[in-house]
Amino acid sequence: MTVRVGVIGAGIMGADHVNTLHRHVSGAAVTMVADLDPARARAVAATLPEARATGDGLALIADPAVDAVVVASADATHADLAVAAVQARKPVMCEKPLAPTVGACVRVLEAEAAKPRRLVQVGFMRRYDDGFRALKDGLDGGRVGQALLLHCRHRNPDVPPGFTTDMMITDSVVHDIDVTRWLLGQEIVATTVYKARRTSKAPEGLADPQMVVLETAEGVVVDVESFVTCQFGYDIRYELVGETGTLSLSEQAGVLVRQDGQYHGPIPADYRERFAGAYQHELQEWVDGVLAGQVIGPSAWDGYATQAVAEAAVESQTKGDRVQVELVERPPLYA
Amino acid sequence: MTVRVGVIGAGIMGADHVNTLHRHVSGAAVTMVADLDPARARAVAATLPEARATGDGLALIADPAVDAVVVASADATHADLAVAAVQARKPVMCEKPLAPTVGACVRVLEAEAAKPRRLVQVGFMRRYDDGFRALKDGLDGGRVGQALLLHCRHRNPDVPPGFTTDMMITDSVVHDIDVTRWLLGQEIVATTVYKARRTSKAPEGLADPQMVVLETAEGVVVDVESFVTCQFGYDIRYELVGETGTLSLSEQAGVLVRQDGQYHGPIPADYRERFAGAYQHELQEWVDGVLAGQVIGPSAWDGYATQAVAEAAVESQTKGDRVQVELVERPPLYA
Amino acid sequence: MTVRVGVIGAGIMGADHVNTLHRHVSGAAVTMVADLDPARARAVAATLPEARATGDGLALIADPAVDAVVVASADATHADLAVAAVQARKPVMCEKPLAPTVGACVRVLEAEAAKPRRLVQVGFMRRYDDGFRALKDGLDGGRVGQALLLHCRHRNPDVPPGFTTDMMITDSVVHDIDVTRWLLGQEIVATTVYKARRTSKAPEGLADPQMVVLETAEGVVVDVESFVTCQFGYDIRYELVGETGTLSLSEQAGVLVRQDGQYHGPIPADYRERFAGAYQHELQEWVDGVLAGQVIGPSAWDGYATQAVAEAAVESQTKGDRVQVELVERPPLYA
Amino acid sequence: MTVRVGVIGAGIMGADHVNTLHRHVSGAAVTMVADLDPARARAVAATLPEARATGDGLALIADPAVDAVVVASADATHADLAVAAVQARKPVMCEKPLAPTVGACVRVLEAEAAKPRRLVQVGFMRRYDDGFRALKDGLDGGRVGQALLLHCRHRNPDVPPGFTTDMMITDSVVHDIDVTRWLLGQEIVATTVYKARRTSKAPEGLADPQMVVLETAEGVVVDVESFVTCQFGYDIRYELVGETGTLSLSEQAGVLVRQDGQYHGPIPADYRERFAGAYQHELQEWVDGVLAGQVIGPSAWDGYATQAVAEAAVESQTKGDRVQVELVERPPLYA
Repeated sequence: MTVRVGVIGAGIMGADHVNTLHRHVSGAAVTMVADLDPARARAVAATLPEARATGDGLALIADPAVDAVVVASADATHADLAVAAVQARKPVMCEKPLAPTVGACVRVLEAEAAKPRRLVQVGFMRRYDDGFRALKDGLDGGRVGQALLLHCRHRNPDVPPGFTTDMMITDSVVHDIDVTRWLLGQEIVATTVYKARRTSKAPEGLADPQMVVLETAEGVVVDVESFVTCQFGYDIRYELVGETGTLSLSEQAGVLVRQDGQYHGPIPADYRERFAGAYQHELQEWVDGVLAGQVIGPSAWDGYATQAVAEAAVESQTKGDRVQVELVERPPLYA
Repeated sequence: MTVRVGVIGAGIMGADHVNTLHRHVSGAAVTMVADLDPARARAVAATLPEARATGDGLALIADPAVDAVVVASADATHADLAVAAVQARKPVMCEKPLAPTVGACVRVLEAEAAKPRRLVQVGFMRRYDDGFRALKDGLDGGRVGQALLLHCRHRNPDVPPGFTTDMMITDSVVHDIDVTRWLLGQEIVATTVYKARRTSKAPEGLADPQMVVLETAEGVVVDVESFVTCQFGYDIRYELVGETGTLSLSEQAGVLVRQDGQYHGPIPADYRERFAGAYQHELQEWVDGVLAGQVIGPSAWDGYATQAVAEAAVESQTKGDRVQVELVERPPLYA
Repeated sequence: MTVRVGVIGAGIMGADHVNTLHRHVSGAAVTMVADLDPARARAVAATLPEARATGDGLALIADPAVDAVVVASADATHADLAVAAVQARKPVMCEKPLAPTVGACVRVLEAEAAKPRRLVQVGFMRRYDDGFRALKDGLDGGRVGQALLLHCRHRNPDVPPGFTTDMMITDSVVHDIDVTRWLLGQEIVATTVYKARRTSKAPEGLADPQMVVLETAEGVVVDVESFVTCQFGYDIRYELVGETGTLSLSEQAGVLVRQDGQYHGPIPADYRERFAGAYQHELQEWVDGVLAGQVIGPSAWDGYATQAVAEAAVESQTKGDRVQVELVERPPLYA
Repeated sequence: MTVRVGVIGAGIMGADHVNTLHRHVSGAAVTMVADLDPARARAVAATLPEARATGDGLALIADPAVDAVVVASADATHADLAVAAVQARKPVMCEKPLAPTVGACVRVLEAEAAKPRRLVQVGFMRRYDDGFRALKDGLDGGRVGQALLLHCRHRNPDVPPGFTTDMMITDSVVHDIDVTRWLLGQEIVATTVYKARRTSKAPEGLADPQMVVLETAEGVVVDVESFVTCQFGYDIRYELVGETGTLSLSEQAGVLVRQDGQYHGPIPADYRERFAGAYQHELQEWVDGVLAGQVIGPSAWDGYATQAVAEAAVESQTKGDRVQVELVERPPLYA
């Protein structure tokens, strides 16, 4: 059996997902591609054996030749498309964020919570990375006792024009917020953002780097370095401190060079290099789940709660103080 | 378009290839499975949506529903099956060894060399591993000048019953022989085997570990540690020494643990864990090549030359002396 | 020429200093040992070729056979002894803290500031560690541009009975406070302490671990993990984040073991193992300076400023909020 | 009590030893310096508080103000000076080689073997390096079972003018020969030298790099890469393979840099940087032994046996074949 997938959004991320589904995922066929720019949709559809293109995402969702939907369009469109998929009772894998405001996230939550079972998955791909999974396996397996502290480094070599200080949270740190919640199995209750000395490499107006402190319900203290113009690579590093030891992501595998008085090892250039495997696992497991009639990846609740923490952190950026996170009641669907 | 693949051999390796082709390779469908034990063939075929089973490998090769063949049956059958595929003008991916004797390898070579283009690929999967590829890219890219020495460690935690001293070469070191030839782009001209002090962990009669010295046409000296009952893991390590630096395979990625007065990192448990990605790339690229009408992976010549070196090494094991490697003339097809 | 050194305090640290001066430092001879417990003083003196013992530290300072003084007695005695040495115009190497209160530190500061040149050095030995020095050389040499963030891990396997929550700052984090000021060449202006989820391994009443945030005059944000019952070793790790890269302390050298499915490397057991070399360099350079008529190590100002930050951090522990650090005017002697 | 040391040879190594004895060793005073060039002897003596200079090494040995002798003069003079010290019943620490020929080594051996106890120590300083000691402790402590194989890398960035192919053995690999004997506690019985492809960086006439295979009495197989113009640093690496695991020297401690798409760690520039600590321990323990009336470091027998293996290896360089090592009977003094 094959899941017929429609992909909405034919930009970099959408095109990547199409390629991954076509080349690296079994049990799926991309049958339709939508983009506001129909030419772009057609260009991506043309890379596939048999796929139609459309300029209308809602038409794609409604199309009988589409069993399940991937949303990779502009952030502002995510909530409406997710709700439409829910109404059409079609599983939907929505790129992060679920929506760019907490209010819009709640709208999706309410739409889905009214249904008997989950249909929405949010694209927090780190949960599918071999390294992050090994980290969680180690913690859940009792390797180091209870979690006490978590140190996170989230470094990008640079940012595209127009990248703003709040996007350091909403575009970048959201991944660390989600990982924290997932890895530790608890909600975040407060956050404080420290703007550090500004690097001379940051574009004007960008307060880079920052340190974001997160406090969880059970008192785990998390520090996230967010540095989006670090110049040297895409560098994701984690160390979880437990009662009897610590667990860290290792360096990436590759070739070590001994030369010029030093040894040298590789750091990935960007997130696509770093997380290529994670994107494949994410889509493969989503397709497997769809075939089995269930959605078990990051939920709309995860999308909502992460967005709520992100908004608190943006508020802390402005106020320069600790901000508490308030969440709505968790619908039973996400128990 | 889809390549219809028939797989001969439904043991561990054959079943793995079937699963990889079905789950992780795009553009291929396994349509037929053969095994001398028809029940085993049926059991593997039953894991697939639409595949037939047979007890007859030659029938599989001849079947019109099979476009290309994977051979993963007993070593002694490889040559005949490869020749049959060549005669049927069907591309064939034959697990190593191409044949268990140099004479049988030559037979395949002659059969294929009479054809206008290559049909045979030999399953030296290391060439498809990210780490080995990065090693070759580094060397070919001039990162450390000309290659001068190559240090190889090939360690298995243990061996199945019946594993003999010569199998340390023919089953295990053959991979290092192939990597040496491929990485350095030159033939091996002599070999000397040193039997080391015998580990108390080896089964009776097994001279484990050994050190195999290989000398190449241009004078690169290669030392291969072959240790098949090392107890602690499946540990493949390489360091290539060039004129201005060295290139090494890094440790595998994973989780680092700080505990009990030490830090700890992972070593793979077996070859399937270590080379899972390589097997996928091997089959995907083979399928892509078949679709494009060409076979460009390790050739019958590679299978032959590797076997010739392996036989020289087995002779050196017995004689305890340096043995020169003699090769037949290289047919123009493999220029 | 030889500096005749008197050591006050014959406990673990004092005895270590005596041994280091005798065995590993050239140009010095320990001629006198003082301890409130004269028997303990005699026992340590007996390990030396020609040294007298006394129960009176002030008598040691006044003794004509003593050119320079090391203070390693109880914290509460440091200030008085340092002031006495200053009045006697004898160089004094005082173990940290300079004094257990800011007020007492100021008293030493004022006594010394009235003299024409420095006589007091405070025992912040990390500044003499090869790793920390290489870190500072890298930063000062412009290797990574301006410093922006600093991540510090300060882990002890466990603590002696009676260790209290404020001692996590005043006994342990003081080293990180001093390193921050020295490494970055600027004062700390504010601090916030986060108590993390409490480890079940901590003795009753101890809020372990904690994360201490320090903010410097130029905006560098520093996070210090203070974990004094981490169980697994004495683990000091630093990463300094600059504009174009980061600098970290490496693992300690030693033997790597591949065994039981993992590779393993060493973590020191305690501070004496970790900083043995630093203590030697500290005393050798102090003796060299005394012979050359100058004191250039960590100053009374460093001892004072570090204590001021420590007291602010202890206040933050209680208040649970950010506390600003106020310093007295810096006397010209420490310009 | 103080050992009055006379140092013969005021070149780089002799001057280093003088400085180490003066600055870093307790219990010793250098009272006399000899060199064929009296001006050079005077220059080094002038760096000390109270030392005389002479042009005559034998006079230094005979001088009543000299209790013990360090020999760091030209290789050809070692044997005569060592014998003279033995006749004068003064302990002597002789730089390697004990003598540049096996015959001359035997002469020292016979002179010393006639005395009731050892007086000669040979300067194999690696035995005093923290890393090598940890390697031996691990092996002797049963961490990995019996030793089976040993992999050694001995790399120098470059060589002084006049360095010849045989010196790659007699000047460089001698250290690995000594380490092998000491670490494994057994003699070497055969050796085979493989000249590898010659690097374009080697001076004319130098066959660099080489691989030296050593076989021990109990069958341990040792491969030593000797590469004296490797360009990139002074790189000493060891991996010992035992029955249940392997033990390796770690990288040297220092600062790790993340920059330019890679992480980078340090490799020492030369042997003085790499083995500074080992030279200190060597001299300190020698002085301690002299004070205690015993010599327990590397013996004249070690100097002799190492030279015998080295000569066999030089013969193998020429013959291109395996050469057996023949040793004289071991005098009871070295039992």
